[in-house]
Amino acid sequence: MLDKYDYLVIGGGPGGTPVASALASAGKQVLLVEKGAGLGGTCLFEGCIPSKIFRESARRLRELQESGDFGLCMPTRDVHLDWSAIQERKQVILHLRSTGAIQRIRQNSSLDITLGSAMFLDNSHARITPNAEKPVDIEFKQAIIATGSKPFRPPIKGVEESCVVDSAQILEINHVPERLAIIGAGPIGVELGQVFHTFGSDVTLYEAGAHILAHADQELAERLQQQMTEEQIRIITDCHIKRICRTGSGVFVEYQTAAGQTAHHFADTVLLVTGRRPNTEGLGLENTAVKQTPHGIQVDEKLQTTEANIFALGDVVGQPMFAHWATAQGLALAKNLLGQPVPFPDADHNSAVIFSEPELAMAGLTEEQAQSRDIEYEVARYDYKRDARAQISNRAKGLLKILYESDSHRIIGIHVLVEGAGDLMGEAALAVTQGMTLEELACTIHPHPTLTESFSLAARSALQKR
Amino acid sequence: MLDKYDYLVIGGGPGGTPVASALASAGKQVLLVEKGAGLGGTCLFEGCIPSKIFRESARRLRELQESGDFGLCMPTRDVHLDWSAIQERKQVILHLRSTGAIQRIRQNSSLDITLGSAMFLDNSHARITPNAEKPVDIEFKQAIIATGSKPFRPPIKGVEESCVVDSAQILEINHVPERLAIIGAGPIGVELGQVFHTFGSDVTLYEAGAHILAHADQELAERLQQQMTEEQIRIITDCHIKRICRTGSGVFVEYQTAAGQTAHHFADTVLLVTGRRPNTEGLGLENTAVKQTPHGIQVDEKLQTTEANIFALGDVVGQPMFAHWATAQGLALAKNLLGQPVPFPDADHNSAVIFSEPELAMAGLTEEQAQSRDIEYEVARYDYKRDARAQISNRAKGLLKILYESDSHRIIGIHVLVEGAGDLMGEAALAVTQGMTLEELACTIHPHPTLTESFSLAARSALQKR
Repeated sequence: MLDKYDYLVIGGGPGGTPVASALASAGKQVLLVEKGAGLGGTCLFEGCIPSKIFRESARRLRELQESGDFGLCMPTRDVHLDWSAIQERKQVILHLRSTGAIQRIRQNSSLDITLGSAMFLDNSHARITPNAEKPVDIEFKQAIIATGSKPFRPPIKGVEESCVVDSAQILEINHVPERLAIIGAGPIGVELGQVFHTFGSDVTLYEAGAHILAHADQELAERLQQQMTEEQIRIITDCHIKRICRTGSGVFVEYQTAAGQTAHHFADTVLLVTGRRPNTEGLGLENTAVKQTPHGIQVDEKLQTTEANIFALGDVVGQPMFAHWATAQGLALAKNLLGQPVPFPDADHNSAVIFSEPELAMAGLTEEQAQSRDIEYEVARYDYKRDARAQISNRAKGLLKILYESDSHRIIGIHVLVEGAGDLMGEAALAVTQGMTLEELACTIHPHPTLTESFSLAARSALQKR
Repeated sequence: MLDKYDYLVIGGGPGGTPVASALASAGKQVLLVEKGAGLGGTCLFEGCIPSKIFRESARRLRELQESGDFGLCMPTRDVHLDWSAIQERKQVILHLRSTGAIQRIRQNSSLDITLGSAMFLDNSHARITPNAEKPVDIEFKQAIIATGSKPFRPPIKGVEESCVVDSAQILEINHVPERLAIIGAGPIGVELGQVFHTFGSDVTLYEAGAHILAHADQELAERLQQQMTEEQIRIITDCHIKRICRTGSGVFVEYQTAAGQTAHHFADTVLLVTGRRPNTEGLGLENTAVKQTPHGIQVDEKLQTTEANIFALGDVVGQPMFAHWATAQGLALAKNLLGQPVPFPDADHNSAVIFSEPELAMAGLTEEQAQSRDIEYEVARYDYKRDARAQISNRAKGLLKILYESDSHRIIGIHVLVEGAGDLMGEAALAVTQGMTLEELACTIHPHPTLTESFSLAARSALQKR
């Protein structure tokens, strides 16, 4: 470690790592400080990746149970789950990715990486405490805070019980719970609810809102909710959790229904997924002019905090909290700091995937957002019921919606519910970001038979109706 | 049937059906004549769809065999294939799609559909012979030939043997051959070779060229070939088939090696997939001024034949022979005939998927094409070995190549070898068709963790190296 750095980057997740790497590649002296066991952040160690590893096993188990439909005969009753093997596979992939990230980034000779904590002493000095070593004070010209977020524990009576776990803890669980109660039907709740349901858990989802996935396209979310209900996942909406209480026959989750009545279900494990809060504790922000709001560190549109030489990005500045969003912010910030004034990412061009079964993916605006801005828009629709590829894979249940401006035909949002929707989001994001028209999408030659054809089929069909 | 039509469309496949439908939707009187059992053409009845149905069962069998890697324990030896169930599933989907297509198109009141044959009497009259009915002569103002193609049987000694089947016949086979010889390692040969290999056939692929998939990116084709070889598919390149001969212990395929030596292997079934020829027999072209070349009906860039009021499109006019290409031609032709001068599809913007395992997909130009035109280009590369999504699904073997012009950074071709590559082609085709730059692709927010991220990762990495 040096005494002085051009840049101090705090947080080695999907936001901090690329910004540190880009600055160091340009020859700047950079210190990257990461509190966890390696580079990767929540995404790698407690979020996207481990949950997708579980989901992949669940997806394969589902497919295996459907083998008979495809002419593959097998005694499905003889299939059993080796939970420790799944956990072990997870560890292997996490280790591989984390060491891979470190190896790649270490090729930058002007980048130092310290596993430990960082605390601002003032706006140009910080105390770095490497794990199990003595603190060192350093000087920096500019700093970037990318410390991410952590699960929020709402003040529900009983949340301190050991059977109540958060989104990070459930990924370390050493067994499949027989009865799993999930509080919060956002992306994580829905995704893990389906995963554990497939693994054999009896799953109950509790949601304060009127339907699951409040931020997704409402029609698609409701359609998914109906499919989950048909698959025997219990979904209780418009409810208010009153208390969690351990009893002789399991944990008791008491809630108030929409009608004001008190009801309860038993569970063995309770998963709390009611949002996330920015990680700002211990950063010494009080020693700087950096301000916070309840949503996170306050930044302007150029990610500058209220302390001119300190920047912040990713989950720690609030919604949207996505790994790819933090990366996009980090890359743009690095370029701007290096004197290349590229535009910062536009939330209207963001994309996201909910790894439900089927996947629910989106790019651009939702109908609710378009309406709130008084945008005159129409919707091109496509039902995967008639889709060749979806029929072939027995996944013909989904829906595609392309939102476009009524006058210009410019595409402003794409929402897809179908297994494989995530991989269609590159095209969706490109169409939205580049402001393409329905006509341009319609005449692009999409290969047959793929799910991606649906984009041009929906566009053509909407244009024909006009 | 009427006496007179505005348009006679011959062929109800992916080319003829949309053109007939679009013309009828605009109020024109249209007669669509289809020789087969229903609408859909080779693609639905003898090509893309049935082969993908087989492939889906093969894909699931492969995944099932890998279950242990994902913590799913099962006695895989107890799995057996119910071939008749696979064939039955195929019939159900084909019927569903064919009747669906007819139902949709019948909503056009100015469209008549006749299952039967059509023969030109002159440039404004044709004899229509509905199946099992008497011929009727009709008059037309303009005609569109979209009769597709059929498998080509090369003049090899022994091809008339009953154990020698073409790409249509293999799809009707009532068992999985123990030993399958495939002559021709183009898309169909590679795809079905892998499918039957997965189903348990001992497969040998014979190819006259130096490697499989002559029209694909050479590097990716060679990589796929190596993977196939590692999976124990026998691939014999640079060979010349001398004869096929039935013997007591099976069929004898004799070939000459690159070194000029004679060698042979035994098989039970021989699949001939050495190209396709246009369907022009019986059309009465000799009664018109329509000219043909060995590759198909001669048309200009507006799909007009040498008879001014007769047009042709799809396989019958030669390469490229793809369902989606024929559809794109049909839609453009219909608009032009209706007085909307839209551009005809550009082969440089075409896309295609080879449904190998993993899929090999492409949009735009190959390196060979770029070189032959003296385009100064560079290649952005991405190895799926380091890809999150690919690692999660144990499919981390592929490669992505983005070809872009050295000076403008405009993307001219995208080639992908990875399972799921087909669904990435919407974005690839959009990027190529719209002439996007590497910078535009790099800053588009692709969601994490998906395969589609690879596009921006490849673009960013190439830009960083520059």
